[in-house]
Amino acid sequence: MKIAILGGDGFVGWPTALHLSDKGHDVFILDNLSRRWIDTELGVQSLTPMDSIQERCRIWKQETGRSLQFHLLDLARDYDRLRQWLAEHRPEAIVHFAEQRAAPYSMKSDRHKVYTVNNNVNATHNLLTALVETGIDAHLVHLGTMGVYGYSSVGAPIPEGYLNVDIDTPTGKKGQEILYPTRPGSVYHMTKSLDQILFQFYAQNDGLRITDLHQGIVWGTHTEQTRRHEQLINRFDYDGDYGTVLNRFLIQAAIGYPLTVHGTGGQTRAFIHIQDSVRCIELALKNPPAAGDKVKIFNQMTETHRVRDLAEMIAKMTGAKVAYLPNPRKEAAENDLIVRNEQFLALGLDPITLQEGLLEEVVDVAKKFAYRVDRSRVPAVSAWTKDIAKTVEKDPEGKRLKSVS
Amino acid sequence: MKIAILGGDGFVGWPTALHLSDKGHDVFILDNLSRRWIDTELGVQSLTPMDSIQERCRIWKQETGRSLQFHLLDLARDYDRLRQWLAEHRPEAIVHFAEQRAAPYSMKSDRHKVYTVNNNVNATHNLLTALVETGIDAHLVHLGTMGVYGYSSVGAPIPEGYLNVDIDTPTGKKGQEILYPTRPGSVYHMTKSLDQILFQFYAQNDGLRITDLHQGIVWGTHTEQTRRHEQLINRFDYDGDYGTVLNRFLIQAAIGYPLTVHGTGGQTRAFIHIQDSVRCIELALKNPPAAGDKVKIFNQMTETHRVRDLAEMIAKMTGAKVAYLPNPRKEAAENDLIVRNEQFLALGLDPITLQEGLLEEVVDVAKKFAYRVDRSRVPAVSAWTKDIAKTVEKDPEGKRLKSVS
Repeated sequence: MKIAILGGDGFVGWPTALHLSDKGHDVFILDNLSRRWIDTELGVQSLTPMDSIQERCRIWKQETGRSLQFHLLDLARDYDRLRQWLAEHRPEAIVHFAEQRAAPYSMKSDRHKVYTVNNNVNATHNLLTALVETGIDAHLVHLGTMGVYGYSSVGAPIPEGYLNVDIDTPTGKKGQEILYPTRPGSVYHMTKSLDQILFQFYAQNDGLRITDLHQGIVWGTHTEQTRRHEQLINRFDYDGDYGTVLNRFLIQAAIGYPLTVHGTGGQTRAFIHIQDSVRCIELALKNPPAAGDKVKIFNQMTETHRVRDLAEMIAKMTGAKVAYLPNPRKEAAENDLIVRNEQFLALGLDPITLQEGLLEEVVDVAKKFAYRVDRSRVPAVSAWTKDIAKTVEKDPEGKRLKSVS
Repeated sequence: MKIAILGGDGFVGWPTALHLSDKGHDVFILDNLSRRWIDTELGVQSLTPMDSIQERCRIWKQETGRSLQFHLLDLARDYDRLRQWLAEHRPEAIVHFAEQRAAPYSMKSDRHKVYTVNNNVNATHNLLTALVETGIDAHLVHLGTMGVYGYSSVGAPIPEGYLNVDIDTPTGKKGQEILYPTRPGSVYHMTKSLDQILFQFYAQNDGLRITDLHQGIVWGTHTEQTRRHEQLINRFDYDGDYGTVLNRFLIQAAIGYPLTVHGTGGQTRAFIHIQDSVRCIELALKNPPAAGDKVKIFNQMTETHRVRDLAEMIAKMTGAKVAYLPNPRKEAAENDLIVRNEQFLALGLDPITLQEGLLEEVVDVAKKFAYRVDRSRVPAVSAWTKDIAKTVEKDPEGKRLKSVS
């Protein structure tokens, strides 16, 4: 199958491209390389030494004989070139990662908010419009997030995308299926919530075949394919903006920092290993909706944990200490989270658990590359509101950390 | 009160600016004049002869002694100037009309879809971000549309913005209030559905005070203020893109065309007179939500009618014939529509009915300016999908009309 991976140079995009290429698909990577520009802007870099996308594609060809074609393309800003590319290459499936994906980055300043909305909404909408215009009936698989629902639910299990509600009518109650209501907690999460509305419209009006994967927090670094050559290694973000909670704990443990928990650590989040993530995408591609179907929505996660339990788990494994700091985010201090993921389990997903995979991450990645860590970039500093910013600034986070390390 | 009217040169924006100025407020008009550019693009013009915004403001000053300040500003494209303008002028209230507002225009081509999403989402989001950044606690009143809900509901009355649903939890059913689920039927309507999510987030995260007016189809031309001088006249669109169904019927009647009904005419829509529309905006401004409140949502409409009943009403009034044509939109052929509007009625709104106001429109506007009509621009030609486009093109709409006129 001819597959275009939009954002195929990113953290999940790259291993997805390799996985699908390895399975025999013809893979095209489209990316504006914005993630590398943002590294430059923030003055951070992947913990793992990462080559250019062109060099990575060359190595993959050398190792496997399989081609990966890279095209530099900005979906959000260059609609015409996107449409032209699609008309010329006519992919049979498209995997869409091409959005700014960090909540803290999206809340960094007004300009970062403006950028995130402009980039993400236009990237997704341009793609949908271009598919209609070129008449390409490709299955579109989009990476969404569990975070669209916020984390202050009434304690009900989160279903896979839809909710049945009863509506009072003059002739009695009538059942109706609606998109599960969203309540995003950051500008980034909000854009994924906007995407849902775009997908609903284009599936309904134009019969586009769309799968939206509501992903949890991805952890882990290596997949079967990225292990084949050291220059195929995946990126590993540990900074306060792009590093997810688990990665930051691993790095803190590796360099002898305390593990920094925000607030009470009572936030419960959903997780999935990178290897399972790429498998799920393959499963989704094999099970497309039919034209005229509603958007197919999967919860792409395998387990849930409270942040403080994760910290305790890694502390126990590594001997690190745990430090509790003010929370820069505006969110519920404690929340439960029950997520349904029967669809992927029914399709044969056999999850890698945190318990079995974490130690490998500590040894093979965090400790191995600890010499490349810039300690000053580990704390999360993007505050959700101006009031919270004052609280976070007052706390001598940096000092406290330095005195321990 | 110092009030900024974004999009204050438009069809509802202009009479709103005059109405609020007349009530003693200090009114600033911000507009990128895109609606005038679109007239130029489409080669159409307002039925009523309309002066430049600068000239209109001069006449208003001459007639009333009151200043209306106009600033040329593009909200969607020039975030920095918007923020600077707000920081400098610090309005106490903002009325936001500054979005592309025609469903047919938004469906005209892929470029029109891309423009509408880019313009509308960025305009609204830039405004919200700029308010947070400048710390201005202005009450934001936004013009939304009843159309976010689509028109194929289960027949339940549409409440004012929110719906209570029961969610199954491990400890039994729990009630939860959610945004009334949307199912927009065009790219334009979709952008107003996206706006709702933006408002929900900024009210929740930053305590912005926001009122969203879900407006029906506005009819009528004159308000008390636009009548004061012929150069203050409001615009009247009758073309297939910007002319709403009622305006097109009035013009067709005035020039001896048959009234063109799309499909069966069984579509039920909500309506409000322009004079009531500006009164509602004033009422909304007088009743702002408190900081921390959820977004206040009003249904801004006063009556509902089936399209074919409207056609019959105007045919009876004028002697015009009714012609049924293929529908260029993808929508339910027939739908019921019950809309709750208790909030505005409770605040004292006394609606102008179609029955009492329509004849005046026919005589004072449609017949008076009939000599300015370009007959070829009356038919609606923007098709919702490529398949529908073929059907519409096959029908000799233009010919049939010419043979009757």
